[in-house]
Amino acid sequence: EDARARRQFWERVLGGPIAELVFAGRDHEAEGRMQAELERSGAHPETGEVFLVGAGPGDPELVTLRALRVLQSADVIVHDRLVSQPVLDLCRREAERIYVGKERAFHSVPQEGINSLLVRLAKEGKRVVRLKGGDPFIFGRGGEEIESLAAEEVPFQVIPGITAASGCAAYAGIPLTHRDFAQSVMFVAGHQKDGKLTLNWDALVRPGQTIVFYMGLAGIEALCNGLIENGMRPDMPAALVQRGTQPDQRVLIGTLDGLPARVEESGVTAPTLIIVGEVVQLHDRLSWFNRGPGTG
Amino acid sequence: EDARARRQFWERVLGGPIAELVFAGRDHEAEGRMQAELERSGAHPETGEVFLVGAGPGDPELVTLRALRVLQSADVIVHDRLVSQPVLDLCRREAERIYVGKERAFHSVPQEGINSLLVRLAKEGKRVVRLKGGDPFIFGRGGEEIESLAAEEVPFQVIPGITAASGCAAYAGIPLTHRDFAQSVMFVAGHQKDGKLTLNWDALVRPGQTIVFYMGLAGIEALCNGLIENGMRPDMPAALVQRGTQPDQRVLIGTLDGLPARVEESGVTAPTLIIVGEVVQLHDRLSWFNRGPGTG
Repeated sequence: EDARARRQFWERVLGGPIAELVFAGRDHEAEGRMQAELERSGAHPETGEVFLVGAGPGDPELVTLRALRVLQSADVIVHDRLVSQPVLDLCRREAERIYVGKERAFHSVPQEGINSLLVRLAKEGKRVVRLKGGDPFIFGRGGEEIESLAAEEVPFQVIPGITAASGCAAYAGIPLTHRDFAQSVMFVAGHQKDGKLTLNWDALVRPGQTIVFYMGLAGIEALCNGLIENGMRPDMPAALVQRGTQPDQRVLIGTLDGLPARVEESGVTAPTLIIVGEVVQLHDRLSWFNRGPGTG
Repeated sequence: EDARARRQFWERVLGGPIAELVFAGRDHEAEGRMQAELERSGAHPETGEVFLVGAGPGDPELVTLRALRVLQSADVIVHDRLVSQPVLDLCRREAERIYVGKERAFHSVPQEGINSLLVRLAKEGKRVVRLKGGDPFIFGRGGEEIESLAAEEVPFQVIPGITAASGCAAYAGIPLTHRDFAQSVMFVAGHQKDGKLTLNWDALVRPGQTIVFYMGLAGIEALCNGLIENGMRPDMPAALVQRGTQPDQRVLIGTLDGLPARVEESGVTAPTLIIVGEVVQLHDRLSWFNRGPGTG
């Protein structure tokens, strides 16, 4: 038991963030961590660590250096369906993979189950990566997962990812803010609860802002109608980005009153992102990704 | 001239994104690019390419794989003061570096000057990286820069970065959305124009949303007072994150009515980010970065 704990301690120091900090010239920080590591090794010799990691929007090239390092040194990867296969391919081959689905999916693990799974794995001494599409702190329920870790005194780190809005905007050529069109941008959960869309409509319909709806496809008609009924002009430019940043990315451009019909006729499926605002008109000039023959 | 153009063509194909696509198993996309490259090489044999790249919030580990690749194959890097030194250290050593400052700085290059500089460098046949702090499409004026490239038919790509809000939230342990506290998040430019802060106050003061102010330090008193005058409760939790994600990150936690005084007494300097909303109260439990001795 003692030997195992000592081995784990040195593995954490040599193979983990402390070595990386020294490598990166951040000696002062490394010393602080080393101190914390020593204290921790006394207190919980057998506890592992959980890394809450943002996988980004889909293109594996949009993973951060930090995320790659952590993925390649993980014992277990806990992931859901919003993480693209090419990103999963970056994980250490020997790492165990646990698929926990998403709330809507069949056979998915409920949130409480995920929370306690992470605690259990870490208490087994494992280096656990909880991998989430996009950024874990923007519609990822990442906060809830680390709350339960904190309550159980399991050490954790949070590694941000490129959120879908940033990724889709960049690859679709739609700046989210722009001097002439938008001085603010809002990310809103567009999914319905019990078949209803409850939003701060009033706050959404304002001049000079871009709105990005996550998970809005299923309720897109209610979404567009709601904005119009609350005073947004029906010909406000709107874009739908399907599988943003991935080779088969599709961008549909329309207006608020026409977008639901465009979605209907084009057979778009989730995951998608909806961008509403004057900035969408820039797509025509600024689109650059997948402009090869036949992709428009 | 012909030999030079041919050499440049092959450099682009072998050292650039096409090789990367093949390497990444994205053959179909590579073929499309190759086709486009052939067409381009006929039309503008001498034109380079501009990469509008997000450098992320400061920690060089939060740079994406794509950004790293591009930084390491650049001929010229055009950057401003929001890009941290450790990120600049990732650039190819032989690359020329051009510092263009920021609007407020002395000796800075005006926006029109940056736009035409990028066009000129690309037309000289160079592989140009325009490196911006955070994400180029969120308060980066990146849209304006590529508009001028598009107008001049200079090829460009946009590589998103971790925006300051994501980075600071992750490293400060403050989820931007949370089931119990915030169903939306808003990024707002908090800088004053002609000494005045003109914001959609009404849209900001809504239940269930987090607000992140970029560039709000100089006007923090007007900011906090404005929110309170427009109906936000004076004891709403608020955080200020200085040099977020960097080893010397500082997080000040307070309430709307108390934050300006805390900032005054602590001598905080830009760059900072201000986070306002119920989620800020989670920091106490979820803070994990720099918790070594003396950093609290």
